[in-house]
Parts: sequence; C-alpha cells; structure tokens
Amino acid sequence: MKEKDIIQHFITQHQHASVAYGIGDDCAILNVTPGYQLVTTTDTMVEGRHFVEQSPAYEIGYKLIATNLSDIASMGAKPRWATLNITLTEYNHGWLSEFARGLLDCAQQNQVALVGGDTTLGKQLNMSVQITGEIPAGDASLRQNAHVGDIIYVTGIIGRAAHALKRLKQHNYQHSTLSHEQISALYRPPSRIKLAIALREFVHACIDISDGLLHELEILCEQSQMGAEVQLEKIPSKKGLEIISAITAGDDYELLFTASHEHAEDISRIASEYDSLITPIGNIIDSTKIELFMNKQIVPYPETSGYDHFSINP
Amino acid sequence: MKEKDIIQHFITQHQHASVAYGIGDDCAILNVTPGYQLVTTTDTMVEGRHFVEQSPAYEIGYKLIATNLSDIASMGAKPRWATLNITLTEYNHGWLSEFARGLLDCAQQNQVALVGGDTTLGKQLNMSVQITGEIPAGDASLRQNAHVGDIIYVTGIIGRAAHALKRLKQHNYQHSTLSHEQISALYRPPSRIKLAIALREFVHACIDISDGLLHELEILCEQSQMGAEVQLEKIPSKKGLEIISAITAGDDYELLFTASHEHAEDISRIASEYDSLITPIGNIIDSTKIELFMNKQIVPYPETSGYDHFSINP
Repeated sequence: MKEKDIIQHFITQHQHASVAYGIGDDCAILNVTPGYQLVTTTDTMVEGRHFVEQSPAYEIGYKLIATNLSDIASMGAKPRWATLNITLTEYNHGWLSEFARGLLDCAQQNQVALVGGDTTLGKQLNMSVQITGEIPAGDASLRQNAHVGDIIYVTGIIGRAAHALKRLKQHNYQHSTLSHEQISALYRPPSRIKLAIALREFVHACIDISDGLLHELEILCEQSQMGAEVQLEKIPSKKGLEIISAITAGDDYELLFTASHEHAEDISRIASEYDSLITPIGNIIDSTKIELFMNKQIVPYPETSGYDHFSINP
Repeated sequence: MKEKDIIQHFITQHQHASVAYGIGDDCAILNVTPGYQLVTTTDTMVEGRHFVEQSPAYEIGYKLIATNLSDIASMGAKPRWATLNITLTEYNHGWLSEFARGLLDCAQQNQVALVGGDTTLGKQLNMSVQITGEIPAGDASLRQNAHVGDIIYVTGIIGRAAHALKRLKQHNYQHSTLSHEQISALYRPPSRIKLAIALREFVHACIDISDGLLHELEILCEQSQMGAEVQLEKIPSKKGLEIISAITAGDDYELLFTASHEHAEDISRIASEYDSLITPIGNIIDSTKIELFMNKQIVPYPETSGYDHFSINP
C-alpha cells in the first residue's frame, strides 16, 4: 500500500458542509462560517509516554481526538476539522484499522471531519492531531478573564484516569483486568463540547485540566493575575484516591472555569439540562497565590502541582 | 524548563493582524478574511528518514516550514498560520535555538505566524508542521482540473536536491563538504508562494512535485482523468544528473501546473516579473497514460516514478 493511500483507505466519512475538498489534494479546502473566528489546537501522543505498548489501538485513536476536543471545549467553540500525522513502526493492517475506527468514532460523535494528514515510518509510534473549530468572533473563553469574586467550577469527577492508571500498573498493563468504566476513564474522556457551548455566555475564564487540576488553576490564576481559595472537600474525586493525588494527577480532560455569583443558577440549570456534574469548588480572590482548605482548615500546598512531560527523562 | 515554556522561549515574532490570540491558551484564536476559504496541509519529518543526524538544526527548521509552504503554493493560496509538533530525544538548548531560528526565518519570509504546538519527549526526533492559508472562495487550483490541450509547466530546476543528496552521501553526510547552493537545494527550496498567487488566474490544475515530477504528474493526470506527453529535453534539470533520475527523484518542492495555450504569454510575463524559471514541458492529452519523449523519440517508462515513504522498511 502506498503512503498516500493509507489514511484514505481507513477513513470513510460522512460529508460535512464545512469541507469544500477533503483528503486527496495538496491541501484540504474548508468553508468558514461568516462572522466566526477559528480556534486551533494540537496534541502529540508518543508510545511509552502517553500510552503503553499494550494500549488497545481503538482506544489510542479515540483518545487522540478526545484530548484535542478538550482544548476546543475550553474555548467554548464548535470543533470542525481534524488532521492526523502518524509515524508508524510497521504497516499493520489490523492495528491501523482499529486505530482509525476509534479515531473516527470520537470524531463523528463530535461532528469533526478528518481532512488531511501525513503518514510516515519511524522507530517509535508517534501521532499528532490538530483540531480547528469555530466560534462567534470575540466569544472565546480565555484563561486570563477570571474576575475577583468569581466562583471556580469544575466539570465531572477528578482523578478517574489516575485511579485507573494505578490499577493498570498494578496488573502489569493487562487491559483485560480493567472494567469498562476504567477503560473509559483512561481513554475516553467525556466530550464537554456541547456543555461548554451552552455555558459560554456565563463563563469568564476557562481551561482544560489535562495536566492536573491544581497545575491548570495555577495557570488560570497567573494569566488572570489573580489568586484562588479552593475547598478541597467540595471537589468530586474518585473514591480510593487521596484528594491531593486527584488534583495533581493529569489526564482527566475536564473543564475548570470561573463565573460570576449571579449566574450560579444558570450554571446549575445547564448542568441539569446536559445531565453533567458541574461543581463549585472555590473562589477567585485578589491575591498572588492559591490557598487550599479542607473543612476550613488550611492544607499545605503540594510540592508538585501537576504533570509536565519534560520533568521525566526520555 | 517546563514543556509549556519551551516553544514560547524560542519563538519571538512580529504581530500578525490575522492572529487574535497566539501561543498561551488552550487554543490559538484566528481571524479569517471575509469571503475567503481556508487551505490546510501538514507534513512530518523523522530523523533518519527525512533528514540525517548530521543535518544542521537551522536547516531542519527551515525545511519543515518550506515543505508545507509548497503545498499551500500549489493551491495558489496565501499562507497564514503554522503549528509545530515536535518530539525531542533530549533538551538541547543550542539545537532548539538553531532549529527555531531556521523555522522562524522561513515563516517570517513568508508572513506565516506560529500560533501553537506541542512539545514531547521520545526515542526519535520527530516533527510535524501544519500550515493553514487563505484563498478567495472558489479560486484554489486543484489537481483534477487539467483540460485536454493544456500546456504542462514546471517551475525551477529539477533534480537539484537529488544531486546534492548524492554528493552528501559520497561524503558520508559531512555537510561542510557542500556548497551553499547544495545546502539550499537540500534544505531551502525557494518559496513559490508569490509566483503561485500571481499565476492563479491562469492555472487549471496544479500539484507540488515533492515526491518526484513524474509521480506527481501521474497523480495530476489520474485525478483529471487525462494523459500527458512530456518532452524530456525541455525539462530544466540539474547538470550531472540523468534526466530520468531527475524526474523520479523527490524533494524538489517545485510546482507542476497546466494552463491553456492562450495564456502562454501571460505565464511568460509572470515568470519574468518574478524572476523565476517557468518551463513548458509537454501537453495534456485525451489518454489514460503518460508518454515520455526525448527529441521526438519515445523513451521507455521508468519502473519507479517517484519516492514513497512506505516502500522503505523502517
């Protein structure tokens, strides 16, 4: 099979009106909605670092799209187009077919069209996806927009991925020992796209917590030039995982956002409408630091607030 | 240095009006010109496959942008935004700094803004760039638009990269043995962006010849459901390289396009205006095959028409 045919072979998709010309020319040609801005993000996953050799191909493909969608959601945007760059170590039809199935399942569930990419060979499995979305001009939720007095909210349950990873390690990466729920926690984070679009008009600042809740809150506070108080007992975290582990572990792909007190009921209503957990966990304060409390008692700040890929040797 | 800071550390750029928010949030936010479509392309380069260990970091960075620009040029579009995904094997400040300098030199020469990316660690140096450009809606030059009777043109001199690579291999990849012109042939293909935009109104079908002139002509003919006659003696090729080697070698990043006879003078005029070589090398015919001639004598068709990354083992 020729390089140019590999992606096309595995990719069969529905037509999207936003794609004027998809895979098959030097570039894809895309139609932008008048009055909208683009938002774009890209993530790389490397075998042995972002997933293990034993990770199922379907799950790797699914997660590659899901991690990028999380960044699109954090802007409050609608995802439109994806491209895939993949470096394979060999041509394995069965693996590729499963990988493409996972990737397309996640893409189609979120109305994302795969419009191009590049396939190469190398010594290590390496893959990147870029997703571009659209948002009405000026409406994106930036990290820098937190206001003093804002309530800090988080979506979902924190530490699910860390908990499942712990279990997986204990079982020597045998995926068959994991429950469906644990596989989902590791590879299929729930899409927050629809929720984020619904919340957009009320959100001040927003960030996705892929590198750990506390680490991402630090970034949001730094960029907003604000501080925060967090009530740890309010954070919905995975049972069996210490709260400090939960807020410093990565891979959860939930949203952390701030909004004014006066919209607390709107946010509650949207949470119900979308059958999603959205929890107030603290407040933005006029400060330069983040203070953690457990039942009104101050808690020492952890030494490491989150995951950084460069803190680990290759 | 933290992952999130690495790209930012080396990237200092001029402001672009098309960038509403660049590096530093979950997504970049981009302003699209009203009435324009997007064109997008992405290429991966892997050490040991697309460049050698001895390749200078500056040249790798430069070429990574240049190869993508070639795809944008083939559509006749204006490039706008780039993202970079890079997997490093170690944190090497000197290497990264030179790599970023090369990448930004090529980007700035072509008014491209770097708006995001992802940096990871792995076992093999691996990098992808995606470039997105803009074009007035409906104006893109597709591969499928060749008409019977069209003249086939090629820009530049063919086989320059192959010739320089041959020399480099003979000298055991010692780059110091290469002339400035040979380094340019390997790593700094001339940008055809301005030329392609000027030619756009006259171009029927266009493709970039990165995987070899003959291979890319096959694709253009296949997608246009046409055949071609090529006069090999007309092709401006690198001295010291056989013409069949020149048209089957890759890495030249020139444009192959077709246009009607009636615009031959317009194309000549644009070639002069932009001080660029544009050479008529044959014609599109109503056929299913490509015929090669040398001084009116038919030439046997080569067994391999171009470079395919998957024809080589990892």
